Amino acid sequence: MISAVKRFLIGRPLKSSALGEQKLNKTKALAILSSDALSSVAYGPEQVLLVLMTVSTIAFWYSIPIAVGVLILLFALILSYRQIIFAYPQGGGAYIVSKENLGENAGLIAGGSLLVDYILTVAVSVSAGTDAITSAIPSLHEHNVVIASVLVVLITILNLRGLTESASILAYPVYLFVLALFVLIGVGFFHIITGNASPELHAPLGTPVTGISLFLILRAFASGSSALTGVEAISNAIPNFNHPAPKNAAKTLAIMGSLLAVMLVGIVFLAYYYGIVPKGEETVVSQIAAVTFGRNFIYYFIQGTTALILVLAANTGYSAFPLLAFNLSKDKYIPSMFKMRGDRLGYSNGIITLGITSILLIIIFEGQTEQLIPLYAVGVFIPFTLSQTGMLVKWFREKPKNWVGKLLINFVGAIISFTVMMIFFITKFGQVWAVLIFIPVLIFIFHKIKNHYESVGEQLSVSNNSPIKPIEGNVIIVPVAGITHVVENSLNYAKSLNPKQILAVYVAFDREDEKRLAEKWSKWQPDVRLVTLYSQYRSINYPLSKFISKVENKAYESSYTVTVLIPQFIPKKGWHNILHNQSSLLIKTILLYRKDVIVTTVPYHFKK
Amino acid sequence: MISAVKRFLIGRPLKSSALGEQKLNKTKALAILSSDALSSVAYGPEQVLLVLMTVSTIAFWYSIPIAVGVLILLFALILSYRQIIFAYPQGGGAYIVSKENLGENAGLIAGGSLLVDYILTVAVSVSAGTDAITSAIPSLHEHNVVIASVLVVLITILNLRGLTESASILAYPVYLFVLALFVLIGVGFFHIITGNASPELHAPLGTPVTGISLFLILRAFASGSSALTGVEAISNAIPNFNHPAPKNAAKTLAIMGSLLAVMLVGIVFLAYYYGIVPKGEETVVSQIAAVTFGRNFIYYFIQGTTALILVLAANTGYSAFPLLAFNLSKDKYIPSMFKMRGDRLGYSNGIITLGITSILLIIIFEGQTEQLIPLYAVGVFIPFTLSQTGMLVKWFREKPKNWVGKLLINFVGAIISFTVMMIFFITKFGQVWAVLIFIPVLIFIFHKIKNHYESVGEQLSVSNNSPIKPIEGNVIIVPVAGITHVVENSLNYAKSLNPKQILAVYVAFDREDEKRLAEKWSKWQPDVRLVTLYSQYRSINYPLSKFISKVENKAYESSYTVTVLIPQFIPKKGWHNILHNQSSLLIKTILLYRKDVIVTTVPYHFKK
Repeated sequence: MISAVKRFLIGRPLKSSALGEQKLNKTKALAILSSDALSSVAYGPEQVLLVLMTVSTIAFWYSIPIAVGVLILLFALILSYRQIIFAYPQGGGAYIVSKENLGENAGLIAGGSLLVDYILTVAVSVSAGTDAITSAIPSLHEHNVVIASVLVVLITILNLRGLTESASILAYPVYLFVLALFVLIGVGFFHIITGNASPELHAPLGTPVTGISLFLILRAFASGSSALTGVEAISNAIPNFNHPAPKNAAKTLAIMGSLLAVMLVGIVFLAYYYGIVPKGEETVVSQIAAVTFGRNFIYYFIQGTTALILVLAANTGYSAFPLLAFNLSKDKYIPSMFKMRGDRLGYSNGIITLGITSILLIIIFEGQTEQLIPLYAVGVFIPFTLSQTGMLVKWFREKPKNWVGKLLINFVGAIISFTVMMIFFITKFGQVWAVLIFIPVLIFIFHKIKNHYESVGEQLSVSNNSPIKPIEGNVIIVPVAGITHVVENSLNYAKSLNPKQILAVYVAFDREDEKRLAEKWSKWQPDVRLVTLYSQYRSINYPLSKFISKVENKAYESSYTVTVLIPQFIPKKGWHNILHNQSSLLIKTILLYRKDVIVTTVPYHFKK
Repeated sequence: MISAVKRFLIGRPLKSSALGEQKLNKTKALAILSSDALSSVAYGPEQVLLVLMTVSTIAFWYSIPIAVGVLILLFALILSYRQIIFAYPQGGGAYIVSKENLGENAGLIAGGSLLVDYILTVAVSVSAGTDAITSAIPSLHEHNVVIASVLVVLITILNLRGLTESASILAYPVYLFVLALFVLIGVGFFHIITGNASPELHAPLGTPVTGISLFLILRAFASGSSALTGVEAISNAIPNFNHPAPKNAAKTLAIMGSLLAVMLVGIVFLAYYYGIVPKGEETVVSQIAAVTFGRNFIYYFIQGTTALILVLAANTGYSAFPLLAFNLSKDKYIPSMFKMRGDRLGYSNGIITLGITSILLIIIFEGQTEQLIPLYAVGVFIPFTLSQTGMLVKWFREKPKNWVGKLLINFVGAIISFTVMMIFFITKFGQVWAVLIFIPVLIFIFHKIKNHYESVGEQLSVSNNSPIKPIEGNVIIVPVAGITHVVENSLNYAKSLNPKQILAVYVAFDREDEKRLAEKWSKWQPDVRLVTLYSQYRSINYPLSKFISKVENKAYESSYTVTVLIPQFIPKKGWHNILHNQSSLLIKTILLYRKDVIVTTVPYHFKK
């Protein structure tokens, strides 16, 4: 039943050899890896205006130089990640770049913040998308949490089905969103050029503003740079690209950067030219669209694709998280289950973990995860800073051709990233302090796990361990519940193993019973020694455990192993299980975990 | 940790030999077994007046002859159950009496309805008690379900601690309630005798009433007889009494009957004489108390003990349910776990089942379980009728001394019980129809379970089964995950068992890996044959299962057994488990349940 549902939801299993087929071409890669970055256009410019508005609407002209600043940062990031793509063709996320160039802990800081960040990506994007949907259909508003959770479940299922298939589905909305915004920006500029928009709506560039400060401008710049979250997704996912992967990835990155730049500048400029003021109940993009087209079909098209891409931006998390988890798992910092490919060749455990944790975040924050945006942005700029610093160190160490130019690019990127990160910490400490707690905790856990795996590896290694003590003989203990066909079966098997001794053990709850069984036994199996234990407390486990320990100690002296042979009923139908106490299951678990004995289960399958 | 909490809540385990100490003396037995019956006084009379009120308050004088009728029924039931106590000193509930005299299915009808009824007792009584508490403290009213559930949990824990201990706690409220009602009735009659109460408050006996019908009177009588629920508890619990159990039980029954009779008649008469009219917001007992004493300390004492005894009435269910379940389990109609005594010698599984199901009822009905009273009453009168008919048959068959007199008593009892039951079905079908569905379903399940146990018994019996085929040799399959110390350990053990053949099996996910391991293996363990299986779908279970089946078929031909020897890591700390995929656990379960192979687990305890 369960496996049929699984088949229906995620499709038939794929052969391992089908792995190549799941690779991405550039068109699909752009759609699947850039929705997060591109969708940030929907809220990035608004964040800038919201900060500037605290002074005066006259200050809005500063959004133009700020946008230029963000563009420079974007440009620096793109160039830097381009360099990373070629330097790390196996997939070079901030984790790998930082680890290799700055050391283990820098890598873990980057990896840990990204891991958490991808969860935030999913929660924040889906919540924002849900808000957009329920703003359009207000009657659904009270079901925000349910809708967001269902969306996460759907995205999770799509990802469990496999990357390429989901890419086909996800490609359309992303391209429609790009189309929608290009139409908006194009028509907007056409209006401006043809003089259809009055220049009196905005203060000219350079108008002096009282109360403006460098601190405020930097804060607005930091807010605007939240539009750059998601830029690093491509460099993380290089192994997913078609051959030649680094080249294709670099091209995709360049296209994404250009699209993002055009859309960002276009929206910021239109907002400035039209004198748009952020409102609580209507987004900046919506206001621009309404001014440009009025509330007609095109307006709803723009709003619809915006909502859709916000939901799909979550998908970036689904591409990046499992790969990062795979890398961390390969280095033994997180459980090895994240290394395994599922039926459809995706890293299912990472996908499922991401789905569950982001649903938990949505439920805990009751769908109001927008408050997490600063936390999310800071979690992105920590790895940005680390990976660019890492590249810096790399160029300096390796000194390849043109290394000074390369170093300069990464140097500028690192400085800007670090500045943005510090501005977040200084201006929004109340919202981002949690990072300073959870990252050290995560790193502590990472090390704990690695230590465990390493000590296990040592204990497993053949060469590290002294050769095993030879076994001189076996003692077999058979707990029996009476004189039955099942016991006969088990004793038969025990005898065939050629043991030094077989001990049948019976736990009696009253003396009468104890005597009766001993008498019967001596007639039935005179050659097998029966030990009866009297239990004062109606517990089978306690006297049995005590007895086994005693035998174990004696056996150890003569280099004998002790095997406990447990007969187990297997009922024909599942519901029959509740009719049997299955004390054998309990005994087995206790023995395995507490004692150093071998446990053999002799199944007895009931025929009816 | 869990076991420490368990110790604290239910106390240290008791030795089986301490069983005698847990027996009840008459004083405690009265308290523990009669709270259900006695507490019905709190609502029985009210039920009668509620029916009569549908005609006119003049009809209230009929409550006197109806009370006399209920008294006769009570008297007949007490006499009948007295006879049952002596005829069935091992505990003769309706289940046993009906089964022995009327046959299996009659017994199961009685047993099934009682089983459900005890659950209803707990749910109904605790809910009513909670209502009484939250009527006194209205601010708690919205937490009714939580309070009722907590009360059930508390009663469950008390019962898990053991019967006598809980009896000491429960004795006081019961006796305080009896004291409170006797004071109320005594002072009430004193007022009447001294002429402090006006006789004009009520219509004299015999006043003609228009609109009254036999049907209505019978319905009022049926409602009044809901005060008799719980009467059979004592005869069910005879084994719990001090020696001589039957005599002590009979005396306790007589005392309970007398107390119930006095309280019932007293309340009915006072209600009639004072002309009390039932009100939604105040109970009849409360009104009588208010008229007699005014709302002073004594009034609150009466109300408080009433609330308390209603909650404790649930305890009757806790005494009777586990014993009935024990009897049904002994006869193999319900799972054998109900036969086992827990740490404190009570039938813990019955106690826990009762607690959980009644909490479920409380949650499902949101604490409004009063609607279940007719269902509950009908569920009581079905076994009443059956057990009295059973006694009838018994006397007729056995014809002991004075059998005609004995037969007459049970005959009257049977007729009245049957009539009451039929009146319930006729006048309140809408509330009791569910009985007609769940009892047949229960009986079907009972038979299904018994059939299973019987077929298991046959399959287990040594004499019923052909002797077991001799084992000619063993084939041992060792699934290996690589060349490790753990595998070495397992192979060592396998070799010591003197098998015909050892097959190491390795499941590879790629051809490269497969080849590499085979090469290494031939150097490491040249004398152990390695079989490598290539898995196209990254599943270990599927190829392994297929391979084992193949070996199994071959082995079967030569009368060999197949043993699968699985190395299992046992991490030192619990949290380490999530770091290992523990595929061995999964493999073990699949093999045990699907195949006819013996599974041996060789534990490898990690040292760090």
